[in-house]
Amino acid sequence: MSGDPPCWLNQFNDFSMTTALAPELSDYLAKNDRRAHDELFAFLRIPSVSARSEHKGDMTHAAEWLASSMRTAGLQTEIMPTGGHPVVLGEWRGAPAGAKTVLIYGHYDVQPVEPLDLWTTPPFEPAVRDGRIYARGSVDDKGQLFLHVKALEAHLATRGSLPVNVIVLAEGEEEVGSGNLAPFIERHRERLRCDYCVISDSSMFAPGLPSILSSLRGLAYFEIEVRGPASDLHSGIYGGAVVNPATALARIIATFHDEHWHVAIPGFYDDVRDWEPRVLKEMRALPFDDERFRREVGAPALDGEAGRTTLERIWTRPTCEVNGLLSGYTGEGAKTVLPGKAMAKVSCRLVPDQTPDAIKRVLTAHIERVAPRGVSVTVNALHGGLPWRAEMRGPLVDAARRALAGAFGREPVITGEGGSIPVVGDFERILRAPVLLIGFGLPGENAHAPNEWMSDENFVKGTRAVAMLWDELAKPAA
Amino acid sequence: MSGDPPCWLNQFNDFSMTTALAPELSDYLAKNDRRAHDELFAFLRIPSVSARSEHKGDMTHAAEWLASSMRTAGLQTEIMPTGGHPVVLGEWRGAPAGAKTVLIYGHYDVQPVEPLDLWTTPPFEPAVRDGRIYARGSVDDKGQLFLHVKALEAHLATRGSLPVNVIVLAEGEEEVGSGNLAPFIERHRERLRCDYCVISDSSMFAPGLPSILSSLRGLAYFEIEVRGPASDLHSGIYGGAVVNPATALARIIATFHDEHWHVAIPGFYDDVRDWEPRVLKEMRALPFDDERFRREVGAPALDGEAGRTTLERIWTRPTCEVNGLLSGYTGEGAKTVLPGKAMAKVSCRLVPDQTPDAIKRVLTAHIERVAPRGVSVTVNALHGGLPWRAEMRGPLVDAARRALAGAFGREPVITGEGGSIPVVGDFERILRAPVLLIGFGLPGENAHAPNEWMSDENFVKGTRAVAMLWDELAKPAA
Repeated sequence: MSGDPPCWLNQFNDFSMTTALAPELSDYLAKNDRRAHDELFAFLRIPSVSARSEHKGDMTHAAEWLASSMRTAGLQTEIMPTGGHPVVLGEWRGAPAGAKTVLIYGHYDVQPVEPLDLWTTPPFEPAVRDGRIYARGSVDDKGQLFLHVKALEAHLATRGSLPVNVIVLAEGEEEVGSGNLAPFIERHRERLRCDYCVISDSSMFAPGLPSILSSLRGLAYFEIEVRGPASDLHSGIYGGAVVNPATALARIIATFHDEHWHVAIPGFYDDVRDWEPRVLKEMRALPFDDERFRREVGAPALDGEAGRTTLERIWTRPTCEVNGLLSGYTGEGAKTVLPGKAMAKVSCRLVPDQTPDAIKRVLTAHIERVAPRGVSVTVNALHGGLPWRAEMRGPLVDAARRALAGAFGREPVITGEGGSIPVVGDFERILRAPVLLIGFGLPGENAHAPNEWMSDENFVKGTRAVAMLWDELAKPAA
Repeated sequence: MSGDPPCWLNQFNDFSMTTALAPELSDYLAKNDRRAHDELFAFLRIPSVSARSEHKGDMTHAAEWLASSMRTAGLQTEIMPTGGHPVVLGEWRGAPAGAKTVLIYGHYDVQPVEPLDLWTTPPFEPAVRDGRIYARGSVDDKGQLFLHVKALEAHLATRGSLPVNVIVLAEGEEEVGSGNLAPFIERHRERLRCDYCVISDSSMFAPGLPSILSSLRGLAYFEIEVRGPASDLHSGIYGGAVVNPATALARIIATFHDEHWHVAIPGFYDDVRDWEPRVLKEMRALPFDDERFRREVGAPALDGEAGRTTLERIWTRPTCEVNGLLSGYTGEGAKTVLPGKAMAKVSCRLVPDQTPDAIKRVLTAHIERVAPRGVSVTVNALHGGLPWRAEMRGPLVDAARRALAGAFGREPVITGEGGSIPVVGDFERILRAPVLLIGFGLPGENAHAPNEWMSDENFVKGTRAVAMLWDELAKPAA
């Protein structure tokens, strides 16, 4: 994985300042820039690897360090136990009557660092090179979480108040599946009640191009097993008279798409909600070079559902993909076996309002229809997650557009994400508050890989953007 | 593997003696029956496992023992070196002018015996139970080779002559691929010149049912690799915009057959020569129970090329089978990978006059036509072998029918074999002599498995059949 942004992203250079950060906030952030960096580096030096039990002490240390930093910023803080690593909660509830309450979510745990020998500088010794802050957790998510703390500090230090009530919820288990988060939110639903959630744990579309992430795909993951004879047979002695489960599996998979790569499973698209033309139009306007993208992935050609652009295919359309195949003899050379069984891992990426349960139903019914006689087929659901889509309307999105434009000097773009961030759905479902995803990462940032980095410019501008966000949100509607 | 014959074989009980063994041969064999068994057991006690270097001394011992036994029978013998284990050659060339010369092929090497704990009695301590001679090599092929030696001995001991010239060629590398045999035949082509070859290294269709094996399928084995992106990708981040090689492979494989399991690769059947209606009719008359066969293989149902019986599908029709599939993630649970490549092992069983080369051409051309854009496909030939079919006409086949009928009390049946015996083609090709396959094994005999056995009745009747064969062959045409 390269440390450079993928070459298929053209770089924008369109500056049209519309909104400015209040002077006292701007001054404060400029004056305290060095301290903010020093503190971020101290945060990054704590090896808070949630997956490794030997880092349990570091997890506690990171939680305490973060709580202390929030207290310094002016928040009431509390370290709250969960079934796993604790949640750090920071609160400021002094906004004027009628003000909105926002919940900012982030995480203080980081991914493991192996393989260590691929790091140019050690993962827990932050180093700045070429405008990038290299360290494990720099962009995922300590830097993006911490810039929120610094923005809140700027408000409280300069004005003694915020225009909104704020809850900061930082968990320590995002990199191990957030297994205790939904129960935590459920348990503290009243205390966490809010009007909006804001999460900065994603990336901008390209350098200089502030982005609002408007959608995530869901997932329905299956294991399909086709069974034929009771055991592997000699393909000479039996071949031709016994249905081959590997061939049968291939024939089943071949019915999943038509010749235009449209999923051909009846009912598959039944619950797909149309995308807003406005959002599709914005996505189509994004600078994207198919040929560069093709070279980046190294495929002979790109192809997918007919009549859709690459970004539409990834962000807005459901898929049905084979993730794995296994049958018979797979070693070196020739072994003449008629396999007793064949297995495929197949997963569907979902878009609103598809659900893993409904997809399992249509997939299973389809396979029962198309499976050849002579084999038996089972479909087991292994994993599922709901898709998510933001409304992209309302005061918070409007405020975010103005704040991002103000900080980065150009209108933000709307992006989608082909993968999943399961906690987003949890917040919306339990707290019934819309979620805003504004991330300050960049393509190629190596989250989860060696040489993770965060753009220093994005750390600085991101702090200004979220500082501006609370003022913008509190402004009366135009 | 069970020691019992497969339950799908009905047993015949149709006796209609037509030809009898000459009384002096019959008397000699009856009188020397005990000695023949003692000698066979001595042969079986030699652990001549060609695949294991620790048995090199045993291989020499077996070759010497066999040469000595042939000498006792009245043959001129020679142990001849090859690149591996030696060939034992026995010759008798005293037949009247104008007599035919026959070459009898067999092998004195045996399969390894592991797993030893599954043997009821030790593999190299022959034991008779329920009319079966249990020992490694009993049926494959020491017993079947040795009964030829005993038949020749009966002729030479009682009459001092044979009605045909005889060459016995016993190799020691059949179980390791006969790599040195074709060069040996080439090198000694003049000395091995003959009118007919006879091989007893196969099985009868059922107990009491003498069989002439009339065909063997050939093989064309390929590895197909479909390559998409340069490496595995995240199926969320890329899925839908990059063609999935596993899906592409499944779509390619799905085009190999039509809905009636007829191979749908254009040109695949071009070189298939029609089967003689007489042979097909004989095969259709064989006692065969599909439902018992289905239960034996343990498949939910049998299916194959429409309009063909199970035995026709296995013996007379070419196939295109998937032997293995591998792509992406195949471990436990869910991993959301879009695989970089997908591999299938695919092999075609061939019937005359298909060739591995021609099949590679039509398969490759077909795959090029049907492969979706966005992937590249390579087809590598791993292994090939020509199919074979006997003429089933002429003096040798007629003589064999009479001799088998005489010895077993019923007309032999014509069988096929779905697998391959490569040396058959070598003999025909190099020596330009037709090959007769008359085997005295039985279904369930555990060749290559623990508890290998040969029917004692078949050893005794097989000796009489081949003793009769030379007299029948020498008779003037009716």
